[in-house]
Amino acid sequence: MGRIICAGLGPGDPDLISVKADRTIRSASHVAFFRKAGRQGQARRIAAGLLRADAVELAMEYPLTTELPFDSPDYVRQLAGFYDTWADRLADLARSTDIVVLCEGDPFLYGSFMHLHARLQHRASIEVIPGISGMSGCWTATGRPITWGDDVLCVLTGTLPEDGIARHAETADALVVMKIGRNLPKVRRALDRAGRLSQAWLIERGTMPGQRITPLAEATGADCPYFALVVVHGHGRRPKAAPESVS
Amino acid sequence: MGRIICAGLGPGDPDLISVKADRTIRSASHVAFFRKAGRQGQARRIAAGLLRADAVELAMEYPLTTELPFDSPDYVRQLAGFYDTWADRLADLARSTDIVVLCEGDPFLYGSFMHLHARLQHRASIEVIPGISGMSGCWTATGRPITWGDDVLCVLTGTLPEDGIARHAETADALVVMKIGRNLPKVRRALDRAGRLSQAWLIERGTMPGQRITPLAEATGADCPYFALVVVHGHGRRPKAAPESVS
Repeated sequence: MGRIICAGLGPGDPDLISVKADRTIRSASHVAFFRKAGRQGQARRIAAGLLRADAVELAMEYPLTTELPFDSPDYVRQLAGFYDTWADRLADLARSTDIVVLCEGDPFLYGSFMHLHARLQHRASIEVIPGISGMSGCWTATGRPITWGDDVLCVLTGTLPEDGIARHAETADALVVMKIGRNLPKVRRALDRAGRLSQAWLIERGTMPGQRITPLAEATGADCPYFALVVVHGHGRRPKAAPESVS
Repeated sequence: MGRIICAGLGPGDPDLISVKADRTIRSASHVAFFRKAGRQGQARRIAAGLLRADAVELAMEYPLTTELPFDSPDYVRQLAGFYDTWADRLADLARSTDIVVLCEGDPFLYGSFMHLHARLQHRASIEVIPGISGMSGCWTATGRPITWGDDVLCVLTGTLPEDGIARHAETADALVVMKIGRNLPKVRRALDRAGRLSQAWLIERGTMPGQRITPLAEATGADCPYFALVVVHGHGRRPKAAPESVS
Protein backbone atom coordinates (compact mmCIF):
# COMPACT_ATOMS: atom_id res chain seq x y z
CA MET A 1 0.00 0.00 0.00
CA GLY A 2 1.55 3.29 -1.14
CA ARG A 3 1.17 6.63 0.49
CA ILE A 4 -0.93 9.64 -0.39
CA ILE A 5 0.45 12.75 1.26
CA CYS A 6 -1.65 15.89 1.26
CA ALA A 7 0.67 18.88 1.56
CA GLY A 8 -0.88 22.10 2.91
CA LEU A 9 0.53 24.98 0.88
CA GLY A 10 -0.42 27.86 3.16
CA PRO A 11 -2.05 31.15 2.15
CA GLY A 12 -0.27 31.72 -1.16
CA ASP A 13 3.28 33.01 -0.60
CA PRO A 14 5.52 29.97 -1.30
CA ASP A 15 7.80 31.20 1.51
CA LEU A 16 4.99 30.37 3.95
CA ILE A 17 4.95 26.66 3.11
CA SER A 18 6.16 24.51 6.00
CA VAL A 19 9.66 23.05 5.92
CA LYS A 20 8.09 19.59 5.82
CA ALA A 21 5.69 20.30 2.95
CA ASP A 22 8.45 22.08 1.02
CA ARG A 23 10.77 19.07 1.32
CA THR A 24 7.94 16.64 0.50
CA ILE A 25 6.95 18.50 -2.66
CA ARG A 26 10.54 18.94 -3.86
CA SER A 27 11.13 15.18 -3.70
CA ALA A 28 7.76 14.08 -5.12
CA SER A 29 7.68 11.93 -8.27
CA HIS A 30 3.86 12.27 -8.59
CA VAL A 31 1.94 15.44 -7.80
CA ALA A 32 -1.85 15.89 -7.96
CA PHE A 33 -3.86 19.10 -7.60
CA PHE A 34 -7.37 20.43 -8.15
CA ARG A 35 -8.08 23.14 -10.67
CA LYS A 36 -10.78 24.65 -12.78
CA ALA A 37 -10.59 23.37 -16.38
CA GLY A 38 -8.51 25.65 -18.55
CA ARG A 39 -6.71 27.32 -15.63
CA GLN A 40 -3.27 26.70 -14.15
CA GLY A 41 -4.80 26.38 -10.71
CA GLN A 42 -3.89 28.17 -7.50
CA ALA A 43 -2.23 25.16 -5.83
CA ARG A 44 -0.07 24.40 -8.86
CA ARG A 45 0.92 28.07 -9.05
CA ILE A 46 1.99 28.26 -5.39
CA ALA A 47 4.15 25.15 -5.77
CA ALA A 48 5.51 26.07 -9.22
CA GLY A 49 9.07 26.70 -8.03
CA LEU A 50 9.30 23.48 -6.05
CA LEU A 51 8.28 20.71 -8.47
CA ARG A 52 10.88 18.31 -9.83
CA ALA A 53 11.35 18.77 -13.59
CA ASP A 54 10.41 15.11 -14.12
CA ALA A 55 7.46 15.08 -11.71
CA VAL A 56 4.33 13.44 -13.15
CA GLU A 57 1.51 15.97 -12.81
CA LEU A 58 -2.09 14.91 -12.25
CA ALA A 59 -4.46 17.83 -12.82
CA MET A 60 -7.80 17.02 -11.20
CA GLU A 61 -10.11 19.31 -13.15
CA TYR A 62 -13.50 20.10 -11.63
CA PRO A 63 -16.31 19.08 -14.01
CA LEU A 64 -18.10 22.32 -13.08
CA THR A 65 -17.82 25.23 -10.67
CA THR A 66 -20.60 27.80 -10.77
CA GLU A 67 -22.59 26.48 -13.75
CA LEU A 68 -25.23 24.84 -11.52
CA PRO A 69 -26.61 25.69 -8.06
CA PHE A 70 -24.58 24.09 -5.24
CA ASP A 71 -27.63 22.28 -3.92
CA SER A 72 -29.03 20.97 -7.20
CA PRO A 73 -29.07 17.17 -7.50
CA ASP A 74 -27.14 17.39 -10.76
CA TYR A 75 -24.31 19.43 -9.18
CA VAL A 76 -24.03 17.05 -6.26
CA ARG A 77 -24.07 13.99 -8.54
CA GLN A 78 -21.46 15.30 -10.98
CA LEU A 79 -19.11 16.39 -8.23
CA ALA A 80 -19.46 13.10 -6.32
CA GLY A 81 -18.65 11.19 -9.54
CA PHE A 82 -15.59 13.37 -10.06
CA TYR A 83 -14.27 12.67 -6.54
CA ASP A 84 -15.07 8.95 -6.91
CA THR A 85 -13.08 8.72 -10.14
CA TRP A 86 -10.04 10.50 -8.74
CA ALA A 87 -10.11 8.54 -5.50
CA ASP A 88 -10.02 5.34 -7.61
CA ARG A 89 -7.14 6.63 -9.76
CA LEU A 90 -5.07 7.77 -6.79
CA ALA A 91 -5.72 4.54 -4.88
CA ASP A 92 -4.59 2.51 -7.92
CA LEU A 93 -1.49 4.61 -8.44
CA ALA A 94 -0.62 4.55 -4.74
CA ARG A 95 -0.01 0.80 -4.98
CA SER A 96 3.25 1.49 -6.80
CA THR A 97 4.30 5.02 -5.79
CA ASP A 98 3.79 7.82 -3.29
CA ILE A 99 1.60 10.68 -4.48
CA VAL A 100 1.67 14.22 -3.12
CA VAL A 101 -1.63 16.12 -3.31
CA LEU A 102 -1.15 19.90 -3.25
CA CYS A 103 -3.77 21.82 -1.23
CA GLU A 104 -4.04 25.56 -0.68
CA GLY A 105 -4.21 26.76 2.91
CA ASP A 106 -4.75 24.21 5.65
CA PRO A 107 -6.19 21.00 4.13
CA PHE A 108 -8.55 20.10 6.99
CA LEU A 109 -10.06 23.62 7.16
CA TYR A 110 -12.64 23.75 4.33
CA GLY A 111 -10.18 21.98 1.98
CA SER A 112 -11.31 20.05 -1.10
CA PHE A 113 -8.94 17.21 -0.25
CA MET A 114 -11.33 15.96 2.41
CA HIS A 115 -13.66 14.65 -0.32
CA LEU A 116 -10.82 12.39 -1.47
CA HIS A 117 -9.75 11.70 2.10
CA ALA A 118 -13.18 10.29 2.97
CA ARG A 119 -13.13 8.05 -0.12
CA LEU A 120 -9.56 6.81 0.39
CA GLN A 121 -9.96 5.47 3.92
CA HIS A 122 -8.50 1.94 4.18
CA ARG A 123 -7.47 2.04 0.50
CA ALA A 124 -4.15 3.88 0.91
CA SER A 125 -1.99 5.16 3.71
CA ILE A 126 -2.83 8.87 4.04
CA GLU A 127 -0.81 11.62 5.65
CA VAL A 128 -1.91 15.25 5.92
CA ILE A 129 0.65 18.01 6.47
CA PRO A 130 -1.11 21.05 7.98
CA GLY A 131 -0.56 24.48 6.47
CA ILE A 132 -0.83 28.10 7.50
CA SER A 133 -4.50 28.85 6.84
CA GLY A 134 -5.57 31.38 4.25
CA MET A 135 -7.33 33.31 7.01
CA SER A 136 -4.12 33.54 9.02
CA GLY A 137 -2.28 34.90 5.99
CA CYS A 138 -5.05 37.49 5.65
CA TRP A 139 -5.30 38.64 9.26
CA THR A 140 -1.51 38.84 9.49
CA ALA A 141 -1.54 40.99 6.35
CA THR A 142 -3.82 43.49 8.12
CA GLY A 143 -1.06 44.05 10.69
CA ARG A 144 -3.37 43.53 13.65
CA PRO A 145 -4.11 40.57 15.96
CA ILE A 146 -7.34 38.71 15.22
CA THR A 147 -7.90 37.58 18.84
CA TRP A 148 -6.65 38.76 22.26
CA GLY A 149 -7.38 37.57 25.78
CA ASP A 150 -10.74 35.82 25.89
CA ASP A 151 -12.01 36.86 22.46
CA VAL A 152 -14.39 34.44 20.74
CA LEU A 153 -13.58 33.90 17.05
CA CYS A 154 -16.24 32.71 14.62
CA VAL A 155 -15.25 31.37 11.19
CA LEU A 156 -17.98 30.87 8.62
CA THR A 157 -18.64 30.95 4.89
CA GLY A 158 -20.26 33.65 2.79
CA THR A 159 -22.46 30.93 1.28
CA LEU A 160 -24.60 30.89 4.47
CA PRO A 161 -27.93 32.77 4.54
CA GLU A 162 -27.74 36.44 5.51
CA ASP A 163 -29.55 35.82 8.82
CA GLY A 164 -27.02 33.22 9.94
CA ILE A 165 -24.06 35.43 9.10
CA ALA A 166 -25.63 38.39 10.96
CA ARG A 167 -26.41 36.30 14.04
CA HIS A 168 -22.85 34.99 14.38
CA ALA A 169 -21.42 38.45 13.67
CA GLU A 170 -23.43 39.74 16.64
CA THR A 171 -22.31 37.14 19.15
CA ALA A 172 -18.63 36.70 18.23
CA ASP A 173 -15.84 39.14 19.16
CA ALA A 174 -13.75 38.36 16.07
CA LEU A 175 -15.09 37.14 12.75
CA VAL A 176 -13.75 35.56 9.56
CA VAL A 177 -16.01 35.07 6.55
CA MET A 178 -14.55 32.75 3.90
CA LYS A 179 -15.69 32.18 0.29
CA ILE A 180 -16.78 35.71 -0.49
CA GLY A 181 -16.98 35.95 -4.32
CA ARG A 182 -20.53 36.79 -5.40
CA ASN A 183 -21.65 36.62 -1.78
CA LEU A 184 -20.02 40.03 -1.21
CA PRO A 185 -23.22 42.13 -1.17
CA LYS A 186 -24.95 39.65 1.18
CA VAL A 187 -21.98 39.56 3.56
CA ARG A 188 -21.86 43.36 3.59
CA ARG A 189 -25.58 43.56 4.40
CA ALA A 190 -25.26 40.94 7.15
CA LEU A 191 -22.38 42.77 8.84
CA ASP A 192 -24.21 46.06 8.55
CA ARG A 193 -27.25 44.56 10.28
CA ALA A 194 -24.97 43.22 13.03
CA GLY A 195 -23.38 46.65 13.53
CA ARG A 196 -19.93 45.36 12.52
CA LEU A 197 -19.55 46.78 9.00
CA SER A 198 -17.33 49.69 10.04
CA GLN A 199 -14.85 47.24 11.66
CA ALA A 200 -14.69 44.82 8.73
CA TRP A 201 -11.91 44.40 6.16
CA LEU A 202 -11.97 42.66 2.79
CA ILE A 203 -8.70 40.93 1.92
CA GLU A 204 -8.15 39.80 -1.66
CA ARG A 205 -5.14 37.69 -2.78
CA GLY A 206 -3.72 37.66 0.78
CA THR A 207 0.12 37.22 0.89
CA MET A 208 0.20 37.05 -2.94
CA PRO A 209 1.11 39.53 -5.68
CA GLY A 210 -1.75 42.00 -5.99
CA GLN A 211 -2.76 41.67 -2.32
CA ARG A 212 -5.47 44.19 -1.55
CA ILE A 213 -6.92 45.21 1.81
CA THR A 214 -10.07 47.37 1.71
CA PRO A 215 -12.56 48.51 4.36
CA LEU A 216 -15.59 46.31 3.61
CA ALA A 217 -17.83 49.38 3.72
CA GLU A 218 -15.97 50.68 0.67
CA ALA A 219 -16.17 47.39 -1.25
CA THR A 220 -19.49 48.15 -2.87
CA GLY A 221 -19.07 45.90 -5.91
CA ALA A 222 -21.17 42.81 -6.58
CA ASP A 223 -18.29 40.40 -6.85
CA CYS A 224 -14.68 39.71 -5.80
CA PRO A 225 -12.40 36.65 -5.85
CA TYR A 226 -14.03 33.55 -4.36
CA PHE A 227 -11.08 33.06 -2.00
CA ALA A 228 -11.20 36.64 -0.70
CA LEU A 229 -11.90 36.87 3.03
CA VAL A 230 -13.67 39.28 5.34
CA VAL A 231 -12.04 39.83 8.73
CA VAL A 232 -13.34 41.62 11.84
CA HIS A 233 -10.67 41.88 14.56
CA GLY A 234 -11.39 41.14 18.23
CA HIS A 235 -10.63 43.85 20.75
CA GLY A 236 -9.24 41.82 23.61
CA ARG A 237 -12.06 40.68 25.84
CA ARG A 238 -10.68 40.93 29.39
CA PRO A 239 -10.13 37.46 30.90
CA LYS A 240 -12.45 36.82 33.83
CA ALA A 241 -10.89 34.25 36.12
CA ALA A 242 -13.26 31.44 37.00
CA PRO A 243 -12.63 29.59 40.27
CA GLU A 244 -11.14 26.58 38.47
CA SER A 245 -8.46 28.59 36.73
CA VAL A 246 -6.94 30.25 39.78
CA SER A 247 -7.08 27.59 42.47
CA MET B 1 15.18 52.15 12.98
CA GLY B 2 15.91 48.40 13.24
CA ARG B 3 13.48 45.61 12.69
CA ILE B 4 11.64 43.39 15.10
CA ILE B 5 10.48 40.22 13.38
CA CYS B 6 8.01 37.97 15.13
CA ALA B 7 8.41 34.44 13.78
CA GLY B 8 5.42 32.11 14.21
CA LEU B 9 6.77 28.68 15.16
CA GLY B 10 3.70 26.59 14.44
CA PRO B 11 2.14 23.92 16.65
CA GLY B 12 5.33 22.38 18.06
CA ASP B 13 6.97 20.09 15.50
CA PRO B 14 9.97 22.11 14.16
CA ASP B 15 9.30 20.56 10.75
CA LEU B 16 6.06 22.56 10.64
CA ILE B 17 7.79 25.95 10.82
CA SER B 18 7.45 27.92 7.59
CA VAL B 19 10.37 28.14 5.19
CA LYS B 20 10.51 31.88 5.85
CA ALA B 21 10.49 31.66 9.66
CA ASP B 22 13.04 28.83 9.53
CA ARG B 23 15.42 30.92 7.42
CA THR B 24 14.82 34.03 9.55
CA ILE B 25 15.58 32.21 12.81
CA ARG B 26 18.69 30.47 11.42
CA SER B 27 20.21 33.81 10.45
CA ALA B 28 19.20 35.78 13.58
CA SER B 29 21.90 37.41 15.70
CA HIS B 30 19.39 38.30 18.47
CA VAL B 31 16.51 36.07 19.53
CA ALA B 32 13.87 36.87 22.18
CA PHE B 33 11.20 34.57 23.62
CA PHE B 34 8.73 34.41 26.50
CA ARG B 35 9.00 31.78 29.19
CA LYS B 36 8.03 30.99 32.73
CA ALA B 37 10.93 31.67 35.12
CA GLY B 38 13.02 28.58 35.69
CA ARG B 39 11.80 26.79 32.55
CA GLN B 40 13.38 26.42 29.12
CA GLY B 41 10.19 27.66 27.50
CA GLN B 42 8.15 26.10 24.71
CA ALA B 43 9.17 28.58 22.00
CA ARG B 44 12.88 28.19 22.78
CA ARG B 45 12.49 24.40 22.73
CA ILE B 46 10.75 24.34 19.34
CA ALA B 47 13.51 26.51 17.81
CA ALA B 48 16.38 24.75 19.63
CA GLY B 49 17.85 23.14 16.51
CA LEU B 50 17.77 26.36 14.46
CA LEU B 51 19.56 28.97 16.58
CA ARG B 52 23.01 30.19 15.61
CA ALA B 53 25.63 29.13 18.16
CA ASP B 54 26.52 32.79 18.71
CA ALA B 55 22.94 34.11 18.83
CA VAL B 56 22.27 36.49 21.72
CA GLU B 57 19.28 35.08 23.61
CA LEU B 58 16.82 37.34 25.41
CA ALA B 59 14.61 35.29 27.75
CA MET B 60 11.53 37.36 28.62
CA GLU B 61 10.48 35.71 31.87
CA TYR B 62 6.91 36.29 33.04
CA PRO B 63 6.88 37.87 36.51
CA LEU B 64 3.99 35.56 37.41
CA THR B 65 1.67 33.02 35.79
CA THR B 66 -1.02 31.51 38.03
CA GLU B 67 -0.01 33.05 41.38
CA LEU B 68 -2.73 35.72 41.21
CA PRO B 69 -6.21 35.80 39.64
CA PHE B 70 -6.13 36.98 36.01
CA ASP B 71 -8.49 39.84 36.78
CA SER B 72 -6.86 41.14 39.96
CA PRO B 73 -5.46 44.68 39.72
CA ASP B 74 -2.08 43.42 40.93
CA TYR B 75 -1.85 40.79 38.18
CA VAL B 76 -2.81 43.28 35.50
CA ARG B 77 -0.33 45.88 36.84
CA GLN B 78 2.61 43.48 37.13
CA LEU B 79 2.07 42.04 33.67
CA ALA B 80 1.66 45.47 32.06
CA GLY B 81 4.93 46.59 33.68
CA PHE B 82 6.65 43.48 32.36
CA TYR B 83 5.50 44.14 28.79
CA ASP B 84 6.41 47.85 29.10
CA THR B 85 9.95 47.00 30.21
CA TRP B 86 10.53 44.51 27.41
CA ALA B 87 9.03 46.77 24.77
CA ASP B 88 11.51 49.46 25.89
CA ARG B 89 14.44 47.04 25.79
CA LEU B 90 13.57 45.69 22.36
CA ALA B 91 12.94 49.17 20.94
CA ASP B 92 16.37 50.30 22.23
CA LEU B 93 18.12 47.25 20.87
CA ALA B 94 16.35 47.50 17.51
CA ARG B 95 18.16 50.78 16.85
CA SER B 96 21.33 48.83 16.17
CA THR B 97 20.23 45.31 15.17
CA ASP B 98 17.34 43.16 13.98
CA ILE B 99 15.68 41.05 16.66
CA VAL B 100 13.66 37.89 16.04
CA VAL B 101 10.92 37.18 18.58
CA LEU B 102 9.95 33.49 18.70
CA CYS B 103 6.23 32.80 19.15
CA GLU B 104 4.47 29.46 19.38
CA GLY B 105 1.63 28.83 16.95
CA ASP B 106 0.31 31.75 14.92
CA PRO B 107 1.36 35.05 16.58
CA PHE B 108 -1.83 37.02 15.87
CA LEU B 109 -4.13 34.25 17.16
CA TYR B 110 -4.10 34.61 20.97
CA GLY B 111 -0.30 35.14 20.95
CA SER B 112 1.57 36.94 23.72
CA PHE B 113 3.57 38.94 21.18
CA MET B 114 0.61 41.24 20.59
CA HIS B 115 1.22 42.87 23.97
CA LEU B 116 4.66 43.92 22.71
CA HIS B 117 3.28 44.66 19.25
CA ALA B 118 0.84 47.21 20.64
CA ARG B 119 3.62 48.91 22.63
CA LEU B 120 6.14 48.96 19.78
CA GLN B 121 4.00 50.80 17.23
CA HIS B 122 5.98 53.66 15.66
CA ARG B 123 9.07 52.75 17.74
CA ALA B 124 10.46 50.00 15.50
CA SER B 125 9.70 48.44 12.16
CA ILE B 126 7.69 45.30 12.92
CA GLU B 127 7.12 42.24 10.77
CA VAL B 128 5.01 39.25 11.73
CA ILE B 129 5.49 35.89 10.01
CA PRO B 130 2.31 33.81 10.41
CA GLY B 131 2.54 30.22 11.62
CA ILE B 132 0.48 27.05 11.49
CA SER B 133 -1.82 27.47 14.46
CA GLY B 134 -1.71 25.11 17.42
CA MET B 135 -5.36 24.26 16.74
CA SER B 136 -4.52 23.22 13.17
CA GLY B 137 -1.73 20.96 14.43
CA CYS B 138 -4.26 19.40 16.81
CA TRP B 139 -7.15 18.88 14.40
CA THR B 140 -4.78 17.48 11.79
CA ALA B 141 -3.47 15.07 14.45
CA THR B 142 -6.99 13.70 14.92
CA GLY B 143 -6.95 12.60 11.27
CA ARG B 144 -10.30 14.22 10.48
CA PRO B 145 -11.33 17.52 8.88
CA ILE B 146 -12.46 20.23 11.28
CA THR B 147 -14.83 21.92 8.79
CA TRP B 148 -16.60 20.84 5.59
CA GLY B 149 -18.96 22.65 3.27
CA ASP B 150 -20.79 25.40 5.15
CA ASP B 151 -19.77 24.42 8.68
CA VAL B 152 -19.48 27.25 11.19
CA LEU B 153 -16.34 27.02 13.36
CA CYS B 154 -16.20 28.69 16.76
CA VAL B 155 -12.85 29.19 18.51
CA LEU B 156 -12.89 30.22 22.16
CA THR B 157 -10.92 29.89 25.38
CA GLY B 158 -11.55 27.62 28.35
CA THR B 159 -11.20 30.70 30.58
CA LEU B 160 -14.72 31.84 29.57
CA PRO B 161 -17.66 31.19 31.92
CA GLU B 162 -19.37 27.81 31.56
CA ASP B 163 -22.56 29.40 30.18
CA GLY B 164 -20.71 31.15 27.36
CA ILE B 165 -18.86 28.01 26.32
CA ALA B 166 -22.11 25.99 26.35
CA ARG B 167 -23.96 28.60 24.29
CA HIS B 168 -21.32 28.70 21.54
CA ALA B 169 -21.02 24.89 21.58
CA GLU B 170 -24.75 24.71 20.84
CA THR B 171 -24.75 27.10 17.88
CA ALA B 172 -21.48 26.18 16.12
CA ASP B 173 -20.98 23.12 13.91
CA ALA B 174 -17.29 22.77 14.76
CA LEU B 175 -15.64 23.93 17.97
CA VAL B 176 -12.13 24.56 19.29
CA VAL B 177 -11.56 25.38 22.95
CA MET B 178 -8.08 26.75 23.69
CA LYS B 179 -6.31 27.20 27.08
CA ILE B 180 -7.72 24.13 28.81
CA GLY B 181 -5.46 23.47 31.86
CA ARG B 182 -7.45 23.73 35.07
CA ASN B 183 -10.53 24.73 33.06
CA LEU B 184 -10.88 21.07 32.01
CA PRO B 185 -13.81 20.15 34.33
CA LYS B 186 -15.69 23.33 33.39
CA VAL B 187 -15.18 22.75 29.64
CA ARG B 188 -16.35 19.16 30.04
CA ARG B 189 -19.51 20.28 31.88
CA ALA B 190 -20.23 22.99 29.28
CA LEU B 191 -19.94 20.55 26.36
CA ASP B 192 -22.08 18.02 28.20
CA ARG B 193 -24.80 20.65 28.67
CA ALA B 194 -24.59 21.49 24.97
CA GLY B 195 -24.94 17.83 24.00
CA ARG B 196 -21.51 17.79 22.35
CA LEU B 197 -19.43 15.90 24.92
CA SER B 198 -19.53 12.57 23.07
CA GLN B 199 -18.09 14.24 19.92
CA ALA B 200 -15.27 16.09 21.70
CA TRP B 201 -11.57 15.24 21.77
CA LEU B 202 -8.85 16.47 24.12
CA ILE B 203 -5.46 16.90 22.41
CA GLU B 204 -2.38 17.34 24.58
CA ARG B 205 1.09 18.18 23.21
CA GLY B 206 -0.23 18.17 19.62
CA THR B 207 2.46 17.35 16.99
CA MET B 208 5.07 17.01 19.77
CA PRO B 209 6.65 14.04 21.55
CA GLY B 210 4.08 12.64 23.97
CA GLN B 211 1.13 13.75 21.83
CA ARG B 212 -2.06 12.36 23.34
CA ILE B 213 -5.59 12.31 21.89
CA THR B 214 -8.38 11.30 24.30
CA PRO B 215 -12.18 11.39 24.07
CA LEU B 216 -13.05 14.33 26.31
CA ALA B 217 -15.67 12.22 28.07
CA GLU B 218 -12.83 10.00 29.34
CA ALA B 219 -10.64 12.91 30.48
CA THR B 220 -12.12 13.06 33.95
CA GLY B 221 -9.11 14.64 35.68
CA ALA B 222 -9.10 18.16 37.15
CA ASP B 223 -6.16 19.43 35.15
CA CYS B 224 -4.15 19.02 31.93
CA PRO B 225 -1.54 21.14 30.09
CA TYR B 226 -2.61 24.77 29.65
CA PHE B 227 -1.96 24.57 25.90
CA ALA B 228 -4.06 21.43 25.47
CA LEU B 229 -7.05 21.91 23.14
CA VAL B 230 -10.55 20.52 22.87
CA VAL B 231 -11.83 19.89 19.34
CA VAL B 232 -15.33 19.04 18.08
CA HIS B 233 -15.36 18.27 14.35
CA GLY B 234 -17.98 19.66 11.97
CA HIS B 235 -19.99 17.18 9.95
CA GLY B 236 -20.22 18.99 6.64
CA ARG B 237 -23.24 21.26 6.65
CA ARG B 238 -24.63 21.05 3.13
CA PRO B 239 -24.14 24.31 1.22
CA LYS B 240 -27.45 26.05 0.52
CA ALA B 241 -27.06 28.20 -2.54
CA ALA B 242 -28.32 31.73 -2.03
CA PRO B 243 -29.40 33.62 -5.15
CA GLU B 244 -26.24 35.74 -5.11
CA SER B 245 -23.92 32.79 -5.30
CA VAL B 246 -25.36 31.12 -8.36
CA SER B 247 -26.39 33.99 -10.57
